[in-house]
Amino acid sequence: MRYRATLAYDGTAYHGFQRQANASPTIQGELEAALARIAGEPVGVTGAGRTDAGVHATGQVIAFDLEWRHTPLDLRNALNANLPEDLAIPAVEEAHPGFHPRYDAVGRCYAYALYTAPVRDPLRRWRAWHLVAALDADGVQAAASCLVGEHDFSAFGTPPQGENAVRTVSEARWTADGSGEHTFTITANAFLYRMVRTIVGTLALVGQGRMTAEDFRGILVARERSQAGPPAPAHGLTLVSVTYGD
Amino acid sequence: MRYRATLAYDGTAYHGFQRQANASPTIQGELEAALARIAGEPVGVTGAGRTDAGVHATGQVIAFDLEWRHTPLDLRNALNANLPEDLAIPAVEEAHPGFHPRYDAVGRCYAYALYTAPVRDPLRRWRAWHLVAALDADGVQAAASCLVGEHDFSAFGTPPQGENAVRTVSEARWTADGSGEHTFTITANAFLYRMVRTIVGTLALVGQGRMTAEDFRGILVARERSQAGPPAPAHGLTLVSVTYGD
Repeated sequence: MRYRATLAYDGTAYHGFQRQANASPTIQGELEAALARIAGEPVGVTGAGRTDAGVHATGQVIAFDLEWRHTPLDLRNALNANLPEDLAIPAVEEAHPGFHPRYDAVGRCYAYALYTAPVRDPLRRWRAWHLVAALDADGVQAAASCLVGEHDFSAFGTPPQGENAVRTVSEARWTADGSGEHTFTITANAFLYRMVRTIVGTLALVGQGRMTAEDFRGILVARERSQAGPPAPAHGLTLVSVTYGD
Repeated sequence: MRYRATLAYDGTAYHGFQRQANASPTIQGELEAALARIAGEPVGVTGAGRTDAGVHATGQVIAFDLEWRHTPLDLRNALNANLPEDLAIPAVEEAHPGFHPRYDAVGRCYAYALYTAPVRDPLRRWRAWHLVAALDADGVQAAASCLVGEHDFSAFGTPPQGENAVRTVSEARWTADGSGEHTFTITANAFLYRMVRTIVGTLALVGQGRMTAEDFRGILVARERSQAGPPAPAHGLTLVSVTYGD
């Protein structure tokens, strides 16, 4: 039987989602180890998004094949009992045999958390990017709105080999709570490598008045990677959800 | 010159606030090490609250004596540059020579965070207590209200040797956001050892229907420590603020 599961993790301790020959631990490696303990044999896991080292997830989606005689709820409980504290499976369901979490996905939503304060907050150091200078949230939102639609996003990221850089963004929303907490939420059919972090790093320059909304739009249109800001740090980023046509 | 500073920390990695002969690291130990680097000689630090291992703070208050030729803001920046990432000093100011952060304090406010969900949340594992069963927040608040006022809190904690257990609680507020997130905020002139965690552990029994608000009140009045619940885990607790008569 093929199973589809939702996965949450604190990516702080991991070398990203994907299993690697010479870097461990990885999220995929921990999942496969837990499933191997449950199945008594090796089980391969596929994920929807190959998140980088330090990136978190509340709604990553994975799939695997497993002989299992009990309910999906029992499987969820068995997995959570076998996973380290920084990984958890909120939900498991049966999937059709050909289900592929990456190829079948029609949308991904990421959230990026940052805060501005004169002094860092120790309790948010693995969850949000700390910036000292205040950000003009309205100015950032004005710039971010040009991201929505179908564009070549070469300015902000790298496509997998053999693919073009055209992606469709359906939502790009920058919100601030007035006390220095900012959240950038972006949804697209798919993302380029480092795309969300590079967009956030560039939008932060807009928010600090070091770039205008027009400059930002110009970078997108001209596909000028060299003009974009440095990528924001990984630890502010969370994969929130993955959506499917079903 | 005597200085007073506000201190924030993630207590996860520490054996509590207070320096100990045979357990390290401690918050106090890290502060004294940073000050010794700045001063070039040993500097003793006093704190308002001796938080337990794993307990966090956003508004702990400390004091120390230091020869310093620059401004308090420069001192704040020098301290933050010398502290590990899980400690930070949001503010430093000059204090009168006799200022004592513990003896001069007239109030302390603690917040306890917990959440109810079928599966644990990896991103909150060091910040909030996870409970599987839902809690009746209104029922808990009804029980918690009896805490306000001057009472002998022997049922919920141990006073320092030679002191009585009478404390005055000015606020005891249990709030829930409807999605399973609960916060208990309690303010008193001072607290007994383990008092907040034991109150929360007992209120959780009320919220789960295993004890009534009347039972809870009866435990307080009868000073029946044996009837109180086990203390809630340290990692949900945060020292939010300390107030002074000035």
